[in-house]
This record gives sequence, C-alpha cells and structure tokens, in this order.
Amino acid sequence: MKAQVAIVGAGMTQFGKLKGEMREIHAEAVRLTLEDTSISAKDIDAMYVGTWTPDLFLNQLFPAPMLADSLGLNNIPVSRVEDACATGSVAFRQAAMAVMSGLHRLVLVTGVEVMTQRPTRECVKTIAYASDRLWEQPFGITFPSSYALLASRHMHKYGTTPEQLAAVSVKNHRYSAKNPKAQYGEVTLEQVLSSKMVSWPLRLLDCCPISDGAAALVIARAEEAKKYTDTPVYVLGSGQARASLSLHDRPSLTSIPSTKQAAETAYRMAGVEAGDVDVAEVHDCFTIAEILAVEDLGFFKKGEGGKAVEEGSTEIGGKIPVNVSGGLLGKGHPIGATGVAQMVEIFEQLRGESGSRQVPGAEIGLTHNVGGTGGVVTVHIFSVKGG
Amino acid sequence: MKAQVAIVGAGMTQFGKLKGEMREIHAEAVRLTLEDTSISAKDIDAMYVGTWTPDLFLNQLFPAPMLADSLGLNNIPVSRVEDACATGSVAFRQAAMAVMSGLHRLVLVTGVEVMTQRPTRECVKTIAYASDRLWEQPFGITFPSSYALLASRHMHKYGTTPEQLAAVSVKNHRYSAKNPKAQYGEVTLEQVLSSKMVSWPLRLLDCCPISDGAAALVIARAEEAKKYTDTPVYVLGSGQARASLSLHDRPSLTSIPSTKQAAETAYRMAGVEAGDVDVAEVHDCFTIAEILAVEDLGFFKKGEGGKAVEEGSTEIGGKIPVNVSGGLLGKGHPIGATGVAQMVEIFEQLRGESGSRQVPGAEIGLTHNVGGTGGVVTVHIFSVKGG
Repeated sequence: MKAQVAIVGAGMTQFGKLKGEMREIHAEAVRLTLEDTSISAKDIDAMYVGTWTPDLFLNQLFPAPMLADSLGLNNIPVSRVEDACATGSVAFRQAAMAVMSGLHRLVLVTGVEVMTQRPTRECVKTIAYASDRLWEQPFGITFPSSYALLASRHMHKYGTTPEQLAAVSVKNHRYSAKNPKAQYGEVTLEQVLSSKMVSWPLRLLDCCPISDGAAALVIARAEEAKKYTDTPVYVLGSGQARASLSLHDRPSLTSIPSTKQAAETAYRMAGVEAGDVDVAEVHDCFTIAEILAVEDLGFFKKGEGGKAVEEGSTEIGGKIPVNVSGGLLGKGHPIGATGVAQMVEIFEQLRGESGSRQVPGAEIGLTHNVGGTGGVVTVHIFSVKGG
Repeated sequence: MKAQVAIVGAGMTQFGKLKGEMREIHAEAVRLTLEDTSISAKDIDAMYVGTWTPDLFLNQLFPAPMLADSLGLNNIPVSRVEDACATGSVAFRQAAMAVMSGLHRLVLVTGVEVMTQRPTRECVKTIAYASDRLWEQPFGITFPSSYALLASRHMHKYGTTPEQLAAVSVKNHRYSAKNPKAQYGEVTLEQVLSSKMVSWPLRLLDCCPISDGAAALVIARAEEAKKYTDTPVYVLGSGQARASLSLHDRPSLTSIPSTKQAAETAYRMAGVEAGDVDVAEVHDCFTIAEILAVEDLGFFKKGEGGKAVEEGSTEIGGKIPVNVSGGLLGKGHPIGATGVAQMVEIFEQLRGESGSRQVPGAEIGLTHNVGGTGGVVTVHIFSVKGG
C-alpha cells in the first residue's frame, strides 16, 4: 500500500535523570527535531502531546497549551493523549490520523515525562495506578509483580530460564552503551543475575529504570514529505488493539493478545510479514516483555523467544535486530516519551544515521509499544520506500 | 460543505452526585447511546474516552481499556484524551478525524468524570493543576479567581453588572429545571446576588458545581449514517485553537482569543455565520464565561453580552437561545463529560427531542467548550441537513 503519511523530522533529548522544567526538556526535543528540516515552529498546524501523568509527577494537568507556549507555536489545536506506557505511540497515531483526515498538513507529535523528581518508591506506586483500582490495586500489585506473573508462567510452560531473561538485559545494555542518548551503559550477565530480586523471577536489572526525557516527530502528507526533508520515513502500517486491563481476565499469560492483534493490523495495512522486518524497537519494560514481544510479533515461534535472544538472533547480524537503541532497559523509559523515542530510533536506522549501532541495509522498521500489561498495544511499520 | 461524518447515537447519564463506580456510570451513558440505534457494542471499531483526571480523583490512570472491558467491546483501539475542561470535545474531534482518516468506520466517543468522592475544597485545588505550576499555582490562583479577573475587567471596560452576571445563572437554572438529567433546579436573581462570595465579583451561584456524570456519542461516515439511525446529525464544522495557558500572557482580558479562532475555523468549514446558528451550548463554567462566549462567538458585539442576556436575547424566543440544557451552571460539570454532553443536547435539539426546552425549528446548532481560561477551545457546528 502506498503510504499516506511520512515522518519528516525526528529528535530526542538525553534520557536519564535530567535537570530542568518539563517545558524545557520538551522544547529541547522539538528543537532537535526541527533543526534537520526546513520546518519552523510557525509551520506546524497541530500538536499532539503524549504524556502519562504530569499531574501526579509534577502537579501539572492540561500540559498541551503550556508546552505549546514555550515552543512559540501559532494558535493551533494542541491535545494531550494518555494510554499508560503506550501513550507516545497512541499520540503518534492520532497525529497521523489528523493528517490523513485532511484537516491538518504538518503535525508535531511529542512525548515527554519527568519522573525523577519523585522518589522511586512513590513512582512505582503511581505507576500501579495504571492497574485496576477495584480488582488489582487493593491487593498490592505493581507492574514488576504483574510482569513477574507473566515471566513465571512462561518459564513453567516453555522452560524459559533466568539466564535467557538476563540475556535480554545484557544485549540491550550493550547497545545502550553505543547510544549517546541512553541512560545506562553495559552490564554483564553476572551483574544481572546477582542484582537485587524485585519480584521473582525479575531482578533489578530485569526492570527498566525511572527516567526523564522527551522525543518528537513531525508528520506530513506523504506526497509533500520531500518538501521538508530529503529522506522522509513513510508510515506503511499502523495497528492498535486492546486487551483486558487486568491479567486475571486473560485466557493465557504466555502471550499478549493485543500485540498479536495490533501486529496483524499493521502487517496487513503495510503489506508486509514479520520476516520482512529488518529492525524492531519493542517494549522491553521488563526482560520478559521483550521475549513475549518477539514471539507475539511473529519473529519467533511461541516459547522460543528466550532461546532466540540467548543465541544472538536478536542482535545486529542475527535474524532480527531488536532494541538496538538500548530499549527501555538500557536507554530509559520516560513513560510518555517512549513510544515516540522508539520511532526516532527507527527513523534514524532507516536513514542509516545510527553510527556504531546501525543495522546494515535496514529498509523496513517496526515499533511495538505496550500500555500496562497489554491493555493497549500499538505496532507501526516504517520504510524509506513507499512515497 | 458536505459533511464527512455524522453523529448517529447520543446519550448521557444524570449529572450530579452519583452512586457507583466510574465504569458503571460510563457504561450507563453508552447503553443509553446505543439503545436508540441499530448499533451493538460489537460494531464499534474504535473508542475515544475524554476524562480529565481519574488519577487524582480516583487513583485510576489508563482508564480507556478498563472502561472498554465493562462495555464488552472487541479488541479495538481505545485511547484517552485530556485537555482540561475541553477534554470531551477534543476527544470528539479525535474520533471524528479517526473516521475521516478512513482507518475507522464507527467510533464511540465518551466523556466521564467522577468528582464528588473527593471533598469540594480538594477538588478546587486539583482543578487548579490546570493552571501553570510555575507562574500561577505558587501564587494561589484557582479557576474562580482566574475568571473573577476576567469578570472584573469586563465590568470595568464595558460596564457589565453583577445583575447581568446573575441573569446568566438565573436563565440557565430555569432551563436546567426543565432538564431531567440536570443537577440543579431554578434559582432567583435574589438568590444568586445573595449567595456566598467566592472571588469578587463571582458568588457561589455564578460558579458551576462539582459533578459526576458521563455522556457518549457514536460517529459514522456521513454516507453510511442512515444505516444506523433515521435522523443523523451531521458535523458541518470543527474548530480547535489554543491561547497561552496563563492569563498574564494575553493581550486582553475581555476576550478569549482561542474562542474567536476556533469559531472562525468552524464557521468557515461549515459555510455558516454566527447569525445562522439556531441553538448554542457554550462553556458557562462561570457566569462571565457565557458573556465572553456569546460575544467571542459573534452572537453579540463585544461588551454587549451582559445586556443581551439581561434582555432575554439568549432565551428561547430570543435572538439566539444559549444553554437551554441548563449549561454547566445548572446541568452540572463533570469535567471530561461536559464537551460530549453539550453535543448530546444539540443532537436532541436538532432532532426536535428536547421536550419543554425545545428550541422550535432549530436547524443549525453550535457547541463551544473551553479548557482552563481558553488554553484550548473547540467550536463545533451541526445540522440534520448536510448528508
């Protein structure tokens, strides 16, 4: 299918513990996004902001006009989108639809979260508000423990090992060491396996960190994209799906059904198959999440994701390089920014701009972004061809 | 212009202090929306939820999949949108664009807020998080005091009187007494003028209440709308605009520039003028807000809104009936629900279903929804003709 929209600019801040106000961090991502294009802030005709909970982290609701003020935008529509950890990519999807609708021509989408101003313990409690307040929160569940349930079931059913989980973390941290924007550098298998137990079988280095950061993209109509950049990245497919919010309502704990559904939609729209994907950024909030993702996206058979990672099939040179940005585990996970930052990585990979972590000859890229344990999942497929 | 999308079903709950969980209140609005149509929950192929801060009010983030669970929807895309008190109409606009984009055919949009479980004082503080955390919140500003600044400036510049402000409240409460879904019944001019001073010149009955409630709409492609209902209501125009978040950044305090901009966009898209509008629901969070709105929307000249209301020009039989639902003042203001509920009223008015508060022969309806003091404003224009 011929793409209707394209990304014409992309940028992100450093991820980690950052200094400065949310609006400053956000503006830096937009500055980096526009500087490589012929676009100025005054050309933008709508903005979508993906941010998860600036109210609980910063006492700031209604962030969209506040962030627009500090960019000097015109009096355009500005809107905030929230879908837990899928926030950024859902905002992207809205922005893409705004262009496809014909109402807008050049739309800015941003993702931002400032989390480290709160203590980690408080952040983990806040993050648990993305689980059901009636059926999950009262029993003390948090996201590490939700994903620990998924991991232990996967281990039971398919023989996945703690070493295979740890291999995800080692790989992603190895790549994050090559990404100057990433929060963390390398870790060894031994460091992962001896890190503090958080919720069995997930240890501290099986879990992504608390992070600050922002990322941004500009979307244009496909047929106008080359006005703004020599190398646009076309959006070939967009899928979004839901599953029950709570794990206890799911028929199985060894698969995220919304990942399968979103991938099916995106592959069909793009006219590609899992085997055509050259580089993927998947939602590795915990090591088990990457194993589930590479299976549910169709890169490997169900139950074989752990082995695939351990054998190097998800590294550069392997069958399908996954999270060569460092992923959420190594690069960091400022919640609202993550889905947008995944696309920044794919944008750069497909343009051959990723330096020492470049996947050679990558032509088709995929992003996979998960809210909660899969209550919402998006999958997007991109290519420099398709205009 | 021929409409691209239409509303094919609309419904809302009682507004007020409600019993029950957010998901129950929300599901009731959707049940009422679908029951008049040939649509079942399984036919819906995307859902947009407008809700302002379920996290601060209820410790529940990521509401979209939770609310979808209790409706028995398929595994479709579900997304939350937030833009302060404009949340509901911004969600509507996203839903409309999703249909216009071609990616979706039949989209549910809902608005919901459950506020009364928190004490009023805490709610007012929470609502102030929609002002700037750097430049407004530290100085103790709340929304009653922001709108009091607008009111006192309007009084100074145009001679608007406390009696004219009060006339807005009396009118809207008179209509809310005719609306079985409304939170409040009639009040007298004397009651308004002797109610407790909140922030000069705004008294308690110049201010909308804290409310619970939900509203919902289903949007279809215009050319398919009659498959679902005999009398669809077509969306002729949609405008959204922003202004600075903070009042101190505005050139004037006697006009909301984003209302003017959004109205201009919506009128142009619809091919109508202010004088063509037969019935309007405008954002009367405070009495002064309705006076500003009827001026900025072009119904009356700048400075003459107070006189117009006092003379009955905004009543049924007057030049332009405004807020015959009872408005936010009389009907209530469950924040995320409001923008959607305004459209429910216009949907029923244009179909001639509004009983004792029906505007005779209304053919063109307008909604106007404001976030904050105008950081975001939407204006939408509807008609039963246009398919």
